[in-house]
Amino acid sequence: MITAALAEAERMNVSVCISIVDAAAWPVAFMRMEGTILGAIDIANKKARTAVLFQMDSADFAEIAHPNAHAYTLENTNGGLISFGGGLVLKDAEGTVVGAIGVSGASTADDIAIATVASRVLIA
Amino acid sequence: MITAALAEAERMNVSVCISIVDAAAWPVAFMRMEGTILGAIDIANKKARTAVLFQMDSADFAEIAHPNAHAYTLENTNGGLISFGGGLVLKDAEGTVVGAIGVSGASTADDIAIATVASRVLIA
Amino acid sequence: MITAALAEAERMNVSVCISIVDAAAWPVAFMRMEGTILGAIDIANKKARTAVLFQMDSADFAEIAHPNAHAYTLENTNGGLISFGGGLVLKDAEGTVVGAIGVSGASTADDIAIATVASRVLIA
Amino acid sequence: MITAALAEAERMNVSVCISIVDAAAWPVAFMRMEGTILGAIDIANKKARTAVLFQMDSADFAEIAHPNAHAYTLENTNGGLISFGGGLVLKDAEGTVVGAIGVSGASTADDIAIATVASRVLIA
Repeated sequence: MITAALAEAERMNVSVCISIVDAAAWPVAFMRMEGTILGAIDIANKKARTAVLFQMDSADFAEIAHPNAHAYTLENTNGGLISFGGGLVLKDAEGTVVGAIGVSGASTADDIAIATVASRVLIA
Repeated sequence: MITAALAEAERMNVSVCISIVDAAAWPVAFMRMEGTILGAIDIANKKARTAVLFQMDSADFAEIAHPNAHAYTLENTNGGLISFGGGLVLKDAEGTVVGAIGVSGASTADDIAIATVASRVLIA
Repeated sequence: MITAALAEAERMNVSVCISIVDAAAWPVAFMRMEGTILGAIDIANKKARTAVLFQMDSADFAEIAHPNAHAYTLENTNGGLISFGGGLVLKDAEGTVVGAIGVSGASTADDIAIATVASRVLIA
Repeated sequence: MITAALAEAERMNVSVCISIVDAAAWPVAFMRMEGTILGAIDIANKKARTAVLFQMDSADFAEIAHPNAHAYTLENTNGGLISFGGGLVLKDAEGTVVGAIGVSGASTADDIAIATVASRVLIA
């Protein structure tokens, strides 16, 4: 998955951090590409953490965890979570959550695109 | 109370965490049902904590602790509090606060329903 | 000042925490009245801290430190600050800041009233 | 840069804290002028930190890291960041980021003006 994410980021000509956690939210792999802003490290980790803790992509989490949504303050639990896209839940062929991936460093749309490409490796 | 909450959650076919604290906000009991999202652990605890620290259900707390309400930043005190429902104050027959219960893992409406059923055990 | 605050709170029939800090934000005195909600302890301390760190009453601080105002995130600095009233700057007869007082536990209006009565002791 | 910032602040008759960090966000220099509010210390440091971690002036960071913008919660990552002006990225003649400067203690407009004057020293 890290390899696929790196290849996609290079193809898009952006620099990102990639963070993969298991189903219990523990780190499995992390990679920071040359030239990525340092602020993205914490964000990639928290995107993956948000996705696995709530079994929900961070873009969907953003729909409920916001001052104008119905679960404001949710984003401040669990050590600080991320209310925008780039964190994806990873499921196996049976639909069981096996972990999550978080990508940060490019635009949110690009972060999501890279995470999506990487997550397909799991099922392939 | 834990037994009543578990029974109600099973009846509703949802998985939740249940957290009970005493009047001084110290943990009394905690239970995580199989299959509950891990993010709900911290939330159940903070819902109970919010309710007992302010002697107010967390749904009522949400009415004042919000950027659009008159006590914004209140939700960020005391280590982080919860501005949505699922935390209920527990009172004895004389109306004295004896603790609080927090439920998280299902929809907010379901969390509140389960906490309400459990809290009735105390008075019964 | 603590005595004056206690007397005023008793006269108003409310229970509050009173926190007084010096010009360097270190605690000078703290008092929790019987029956005050436990959540008010942290808030009284942070109201006093907010007022002295910014040499500004916490009600005025709220005007700038809010998502809809021009210094959003200011409220999250310095370990967490308070964007509503009840923290007052204390100045000597020459107008020099000597500390601050924070009151919490009643309504914000009552908290401010009690802090105001107490702060007059300093000048008298 | 510190000398230039101090001279500009004195010329404007304001008191500020000045914080300079390197490209890896580590402190290089810090100065608190006599009479600056104590709350400004943490803010100056966080302004510099915000600018270097995201290679973006904190005034631009504010455009994306806000409840009403598309990357809400970004401001709560990396230990707490600043969503208003006064943090500037420092680049060398080739455009490489070499660090950042944060100024706090006066109005945001004045903080930015002082940081701008100081940052020109680097290129001169």
